[in-house]
Amino acid sequence: MRLHHVGIAVADLEAAKARWALLGYREVARGRVEAQGVEVMMLSGEAGPLIELLAPLGPETPVGRFLKKRGEGPHHLAFAVADLDAQLGAFKALGLPLVDEAPRPGFGGHRVAFLHPRAFGGVLVELVEE
Amino acid sequence: MRLHHVGIAVADLEAAKARWALLGYREVARGRVEAQGVEVMMLSGEAGPLIELLAPLGPETPVGRFLKKRGEGPHHLAFAVADLDAQLGAFKALGLPLVDEAPRPGFGGHRVAFLHPRAFGGVLVELVEE
Repeated sequence: MRLHHVGIAVADLEAAKARWALLGYREVARGRVEAQGVEVMMLSGEAGPLIELLAPLGPETPVGRFLKKRGEGPHHLAFAVADLDAQLGAFKALGLPLVDEAPRPGFGGHRVAFLHPRAFGGVLVELVEE
Repeated sequence: MRLHHVGIAVADLEAAKARWALLGYREVARGRVEAQGVEVMMLSGEAGPLIELLAPLGPETPVGRFLKKRGEGPHHLAFAVADLDAQLGAFKALGLPLVDEAPRPGFGGHRVAFLHPRAFGGVLVELVEE
């Protein structure tokens, strides 16, 4: 399992993109996950994990509520896994609190699942099947 | 410039270590940065950036205040740079708001500097000289 991307909630994708360019990141993908009410921009640096910028499509979406409560900032850590069903089942068997009981479609056609932030002490962890 | 580690504020290092072990991370270094009032545990996974767990040495420290205000969770993103003075000077020339006007000693003997969270839309960015 390796860290796939760091998700960051932002109010303005273009403004955030200009800032992350200062740290060597460039846009590699962009699109919407309507079911989550979010517009996503993936940034890639020279090495290491992707940065995922998340802008809400409305105030009553998960990222919209996050911005209202905490403001812009880190939103989640995503780990790449080979077999999402197996990994999610293992975490479930350990009694870790989950947001998603079953995999669901995420950005870029990947199957994803979120654990509850309580599972990792305040950190929202996403599993991404590659 | 590459992502060096993700810093996470926690109340209990050992409890957090046990959880991150589930994602394949193991302890590779531990120590205190007294000047910052923090105990640090570095975790390394199979690939990708380190995870840095940060536990406050008291309530009136930077991490202690963070925990009181926001609870456990992601604290900062750290980027490795070859020449910290040059990079910090470049960011200063661009007018980015800084926490540290000059490099200071960080964990593991590295020279580090923090940018103000306003510089990257709510994300506390650390530069680590390697």
